Amino acid sequence: MTELKNDRFLRALLRQPVDRTPLWMMRQAGRYLPEYRATRKQAGSFLDLCKNAELACEVTLQPLRRYPMDAAILFSDILTIPDALGLGLYFEEGEGPRFRKTVRSAEDLAGLNDIKAADDLSYVMDAVRTIRNALNGAVPLIGFSGSPWTLATYMVEGGSSKDFSRVKSMAYDKPELMHELLTVLADAVADYLTAQIEAGAQAVQIFDTWGGSLSAAAYKEFSLKYMQRIVARLPRESEGRAVPVIVFTKGGGQWLPVIADCGAHAVGIDWTTDIAAARQLIGDRVALQGNMDPMMLFASPTRIRDEVASILAGFGHGSGHVFNLGHGITPGVNPDHVTAFVDAVIELSPQYHQS
Amino acid sequence: MTELKNDRFLRALLRQPVDRTPLWMMRQAGRYLPEYRATRKQAGSFLDLCKNAELACEVTLQPLRRYPMDAAILFSDILTIPDALGLGLYFEEGEGPRFRKTVRSAEDLAGLNDIKAADDLSYVMDAVRTIRNALNGAVPLIGFSGSPWTLATYMVEGGSSKDFSRVKSMAYDKPELMHELLTVLADAVADYLTAQIEAGAQAVQIFDTWGGSLSAAAYKEFSLKYMQRIVARLPRESEGRAVPVIVFTKGGGQWLPVIADCGAHAVGIDWTTDIAAARQLIGDRVALQGNMDPMMLFASPTRIRDEVASILAGFGHGSGHVFNLGHGITPGVNPDHVTAFVDAVIELSPQYHQS
Repeated sequence: MTELKNDRFLRALLRQPVDRTPLWMMRQAGRYLPEYRATRKQAGSFLDLCKNAELACEVTLQPLRRYPMDAAILFSDILTIPDALGLGLYFEEGEGPRFRKTVRSAEDLAGLNDIKAADDLSYVMDAVRTIRNALNGAVPLIGFSGSPWTLATYMVEGGSSKDFSRVKSMAYDKPELMHELLTVLADAVADYLTAQIEAGAQAVQIFDTWGGSLSAAAYKEFSLKYMQRIVARLPRESEGRAVPVIVFTKGGGQWLPVIADCGAHAVGIDWTTDIAAARQLIGDRVALQGNMDPMMLFASPTRIRDEVASILAGFGHGSGHVFNLGHGITPGVNPDHVTAFVDAVIELSPQYHQS
Repeated sequence: MTELKNDRFLRALLRQPVDRTPLWMMRQAGRYLPEYRATRKQAGSFLDLCKNAELACEVTLQPLRRYPMDAAILFSDILTIPDALGLGLYFEEGEGPRFRKTVRSAEDLAGLNDIKAADDLSYVMDAVRTIRNALNGAVPLIGFSGSPWTLATYMVEGGSSKDFSRVKSMAYDKPELMHELLTVLADAVADYLTAQIEAGAQAVQIFDTWGGSLSAAAYKEFSLKYMQRIVARLPRESEGRAVPVIVFTKGGGQWLPVIADCGAHAVGIDWTTDIAAARQLIGDRVALQGNMDPMMLFASPTRIRDEVASILAGFGHGSGHVFNLGHGITPGVNPDHVTAFVDAVIELSPQYHQS
C-alpha cells in the first residue's frame, strides 16, 4: 500500500500530537455539490450510485477536489445491511428509505438471509478498494455502518419514522425478540466493518442516528450495548497501523460518560453539546468529533468563522479533536460557505497545537 | 372562588409534602379519546374547537372523567399568539400548523399587530373562566403558552420544520432582528400568561418544544433568556396562593442546571433524561416534571407499570416530582393503557411520601 501523506485525522483520533485540528464533514459527498448531482443523474438511482464502484469513488473524491479535507468517507448508505438481509431497500423521491419487508416477529427474523459481508456486500468492498487506490495515500479513508439500533428502527418500522412507535413497542414489549434482532445486526455490522477494514478502510464510524430517541436506560440496553459488542470485535490494527473507531449517537449528549467507555477511540457529538463541557466531562479518555450546527453553513462566512473559532476555543489546547459538523451537511448549502468553514478550521486551529 | 379540593399538584411543584406523587399528561385531552374525536367533529376545525369556550371546556374535562388526574390543562393551541399578531394560523389535515404570513424581515416584524391578550385572545380567557367554573375546585387548572423561541420557529418558517434552516439562519445572521422578534414574543407571552392567571389559571407551563434544536450557546441566547424574562414578569400569587411556573424544553436534558436557574418552580424533562441523575444534578432547587416515554403507552399494562415503578424509584423519596409523560400522548394510544399508567402512579407512589 502507498504511504499515507496526511495522517492528521488518524493521529487526532488517537490523541497524538498534530499540527492543526483535522476536519471532514459528515455527508461531505452529497447533494450540495453540483458535480455530485451530475454524477447521481448519470448513475440512475441512489442505490445504483452506491453499487457502482467507479461512480461511488468519483463522488467520494469530489469534495476533496474542492476542499482540503483530512479524510475521505466511503460513499454508501447506512441501510446496505438490511438490504442484504433480504428486506428490499428502495427510495421514493423525497420520501426517504423504504423496505419491501419488515421484521416484526420471530418468523420475520428467522426469514432473514445469512450474510457474509465480503460476499453479499462485495459491491461495498469494491468501492472501498477503488477509492483507496484512487486516493493514492492522500488522506485516510473512513468506512462506516449504521448502528444495530438505528438499522433496527428502519427494519421494524419499514422506513423512516417520526415517533418510532413500532420499534419501541417491540423493544418494550418483546425485549427478547429485539435482543435477538440486535444480536444478528451487531454480528453483521462487526463482519461488515471488518471487511471494510480488510478492503482498505483506515478508520470506521458507527452512525447511531436514532439512539437519541431512547430513554437513558433503553439506550444502554438496546443501542450502546451492541455498539460495544461491535467495537470489541473489530481488528485493532490493519496495515501496521491502529484503526480508530468513532461512535456517534445523535442526541446522545446526556450519555457521553457511558458512551466514552464503550471502547471506541472517539465519540462524535452533535451541536447541542457544549464541546468544552464535553471535554471536561470525559477528560482525555477518548477523542471528540464535532460539532458545528449544520445550519450554521446557511449563515454568512463571517459568522461561520466566528462559530469555528468558538468551537476550537471550547475544545481548547492539545490533540483529540476532529472538527466536523454535528450532523450531515444539508443539501441546500452554498459550496462557498463550506470553503469559509474549511478555511477557518485550517487558519484558526494551529494555535491550539503549539507546544 | 371555590376551595381547591385536590392541591397535590400545586404542592409538589412547590416541593411541599404530599400523600402521593401527583400526575397529569401532556395532551391529556386529545385524539386518543373517542369522546374528544366526537367533540372535535361537532366543533368543525381544530381552531373552531379552541375558540369555543364551551367545547374547549368539554374536552378539557373529558380525561378527568376517565382518570383521576391531579390537574386539568386548558385546551388550546401553542400558536394562538402568532395568530393574534396577524399571521393567520390554519391547519391542513395531516400537515401540522401553517401561517399565511411569515416574519423574516424588519418590515414583517413592524407589520405585526399590537396585542393585549385580555382583548385579542379573549376567547382563551373565556375558556379559562368556563373551565375553572366547571372544575368547581376539583383539581387545579394549568394555563400555558409556547416559548418565544418555539413561537418564532413557526413564525419564521411559516409552519413546522425539519431542520429550522430559516429561523436558525435568521438567528445566526441577523441576531438583532431575532432578538427584536423574541422580545416582542416574550412580552406577549408574559401578558398572555398573566391574563390566563387573572382569568383563573392556577399554574402555568411554558412549552419550549423546539429549544432543543439549538446549540448550547444559542439555547441560552435565543430561548432560555426569554423564558427567564417571562418568568420574572409573572404574578407570583393569585387568589392568595402561589402560582407555580413550569418550564419544559424538549431535548433540554443537557442544559438542566441552567434551566433550573431560570426562576421557574419546576422543570419538565423528556424521557431521554435519567430522572435520578437529574435530581442529583439540580438537587432541590426546583421540582421536576416527567418523564415516561410516551411510546411506553403502546407496551403492555405490565410493562407500563414496571416503567412507572422505575421512574418513581429514580426520583426517590420526598416531594418535588410531578409524574407526566416526557412529551404529549400519541393519538393511537389505547385509553385502557392510560388507566394502567394512572393506576400505577397512584398505587406505587405513596411509599415515596411516607415520613
